[in-house]
Amino acid sequence: MPIAFAELASLLQAIFLRHGVAPQVAQVLAHNCATAEQDGATSHGVFRINGYLATLASGWVDGRAVPVVEDVASGYVAVDAAGGFAQPALQAARPLLVSKARAAGIAVLAIRNSHHFAALWPDVEPFAREGLVALSVVNSMTCVVPQGGQRPVFGTNPVAFAAPCAGAEPIVFDMATSALAHGDVQIAAREGHSLPPGSGVDRHGQPTCDPRAVLDGGALLPFGGHKGSALSMMVELLSAALTGGHFAFEFDWSQHPGAQTPWTGQLIIVIDPAKTAGAPFAERARTLVEHMRAAGVERFSGERRYRNRQRAAREGIWLEEPQLAQLRQWAEQQ
Amino acid sequence: MPIAFAELASLLQAIFLRHGVAPQVAQVLAHNCATAEQDGATSHGVFRINGYLATLASGWVDGRAVPVVEDVASGYVAVDAAGGFAQPALQAARPLLVSKARAAGIAVLAIRNSHHFAALWPDVEPFAREGLVALSVVNSMTCVVPQGGQRPVFGTNPVAFAAPCAGAEPIVFDMATSALAHGDVQIAAREGHSLPPGSGVDRHGQPTCDPRAVLDGGALLPFGGHKGSALSMMVELLSAALTGGHFAFEFDWSQHPGAQTPWTGQLIIVIDPAKTAGAPFAERARTLVEHMRAAGVERFSGERRYRNRQRAAREGIWLEEPQLAQLRQWAEQQ
Repeated sequence: MPIAFAELASLLQAIFLRHGVAPQVAQVLAHNCATAEQDGATSHGVFRINGYLATLASGWVDGRAVPVVEDVASGYVAVDAAGGFAQPALQAARPLLVSKARAAGIAVLAIRNSHHFAALWPDVEPFAREGLVALSVVNSMTCVVPQGGQRPVFGTNPVAFAAPCAGAEPIVFDMATSALAHGDVQIAAREGHSLPPGSGVDRHGQPTCDPRAVLDGGALLPFGGHKGSALSMMVELLSAALTGGHFAFEFDWSQHPGAQTPWTGQLIIVIDPAKTAGAPFAERARTLVEHMRAAGVERFSGERRYRNRQRAAREGIWLEEPQLAQLRQWAEQQ
Repeated sequence: MPIAFAELASLLQAIFLRHGVAPQVAQVLAHNCATAEQDGATSHGVFRINGYLATLASGWVDGRAVPVVEDVASGYVAVDAAGGFAQPALQAARPLLVSKARAAGIAVLAIRNSHHFAALWPDVEPFAREGLVALSVVNSMTCVVPQGGQRPVFGTNPVAFAAPCAGAEPIVFDMATSALAHGDVQIAAREGHSLPPGSGVDRHGQPTCDPRAVLDGGALLPFGGHKGSALSMMVELLSAALTGGHFAFEFDWSQHPGAQTPWTGQLIIVIDPAKTAGAPFAERARTLVEHMRAAGVERFSGERRYRNRQRAAREGIWLEEPQLAQLRQWAEQQ
C-alpha cells in the first residue's frame, strides 16, 4: 500500500502525540522517521515505532523534555537535551550553530543527556543543502567488542558526513563503526537471514552468523579490525567525553523494561566552505565525483536513498498492509 | 648502533641543510623524522631521507618556501605552504590556531599547496599534550582504488586523532584509509615480505600479495571495503577541496624524475575540551580507557610508540651501521 510522505508523517505524528510526546517533539520525530522510510532505510523507518513506544511507556525517555541551548563560545554550542530525544535538541540549537559556523568558519554542537534512536544522515544532509560541510558522531548502547577485547564496550557508534556537490545531490554517508548496524541485525533476525562472517560473536564470545545469537547476549565486532575499533573509540570520546554525555556502557535501563533508546551524547561539527581558498568547494567536490565515476565507481553512498526518495515522491511510500494497519491502530490508541 | 635523539636530529638537520633546505624548515623536518625513528615508525623515519633528497634534487618541492598564514575568520586559519612542506606551514600557523581554538572552542587549519611526506600522528599528538583534542586528515598521491572502481583515485589518505587522558600519555591514532600505508608496502618490498590478502591489486587490477607488483603500476585497496572507501573520499574533500589544495590525482610530477612527495593539502580541526559540560574531558577519557582494559584490551594505538620512545631515551635510537654511515655521508655531501 503506498502512502504519501505527508500522510505518513501526519500518521506518525499522531502516534507520538497519542503516546505522551510533546507536539514539537512529535513533529520532529515523525518527520525523521518518515524520511528514513521514504529513503528506503527501513531499519530506521516505521520499523522503529514499536521501539519508540515501548521506550516511552517505560518512562526511560522524556517525550516532553525541553532542550536547553547554551551559547558556550564563538564556535561552540552545547545543548542539554534534558533526557529527551537528540533530534529536537539539534533543531533547537541549529540556527545558532549555523550562524556561528558561517561567522567563525567552523562551529561545533555538543548534545548531551540525549536519546538518539534514528539514522544519523538526516542530521547532516540538511547542512550540505545549505552549502555547509557537516560531520557527526553519536554513541549508542554497549554492543561492540573492541579489537583485542573479550567483552562489548562500544556502541555501534556511527559517523556521518555531508558535503555539497555542484549540480547534484549532496555527498552523504552514514556508517556504523561496527561491522553491521544494530537495525540490520534486528531486520536479519526478523527475516531469518544470516549475518556476513566477521560481523559478530555469541554470548560466549564465539564468532557467529546467527543474528539471534548476536541479539541474545552476543555482540557485534568493529568494521575493519583495529582501525574501525579506533574510530569507535574516537566516537565515544567525542560523543560522550566531550559533550558531557554517557559512554555506551554507563547507563542502566534495567529499571525500565521495554527501554531501547541509548542515553548518550552527540557531536556535530559544521564547516563553512565559503572560507575555502580558490575554487568553490561544491565545484571541487563535483570534480572528485566525476573522477571517481570515470574510474568505474557506479554506486555512491546516498544515491540509493535519493532514488528511493524520488520514487516515493512519484508513487508514495510502500508499506505492507499489516504495518499500516498497526500504525493506524497506534494512532487511535488512548 | 645506538644514537641519541638530539644527535640524530642534528645529523638529519645537517643533511637537509646540505641539500638546499632553509634552516627553519630543516629543523622542523629533522625533528619530525627523528621522532618517527625514535618511536619505532621506521617506515616514516630515516628510511624516508632518500626520498626527501631525491625530491629536493628534482626541484619538485621548495625546501626554502616561506608559508603564508591567513587569519580567515575567528575559527579558521589558512596557510599557503607555497610549494614547500606541510610541517613548517603547521608550525607557522600553530600559535594562531591554538589561540583561536581556546577562544572559540573549536578552530580549523587549512593547509594548501603543501607536501606531506611524514607520519600524521606527530602533527596531532602535541595538541593533546596541551589539553586539546585534534583531528587531522591529509591526502597523498593516487594509489588507492575506490570501492567499486577499476582504477586508483585516492591517496592512502590517513586520519589521525589525539586526545588527552588523565594520568597517562595522550590517546593517539594515525591510520591510513588504505588497507596498508605506502611506507609499509615499501618496507615489505625492500625486505621481501608478502602483503596480507585484500591489500592491493597489480597493474592489471588483479588481487596480489606481492608488494613489488603493487608498487610497479598496481594499487592499494581501501581498508574495510565501502566504509574505508567513503572515509578516503571524505579525506580528499577535506584535505583538498576544502583547503584549496590538489586532489591525489591532480598533480603531475612527470617532469620531476625522483619526486616522491604528494603536492596536496591538509586539514586540522582542534577542539578545546575545557568547554565541555560536566567532568573534565581527560578524566572521562581515562574512564573509557580503563573500561576498555577491563574488557581485555591489552594494546592501545600509540602505546608501542611510547614504549619505543622511552627505550630510545634510555638506550638511544638503534640504527644499522650502513644506514648511519649513509646518513653521515649525506650530511657531508656538497
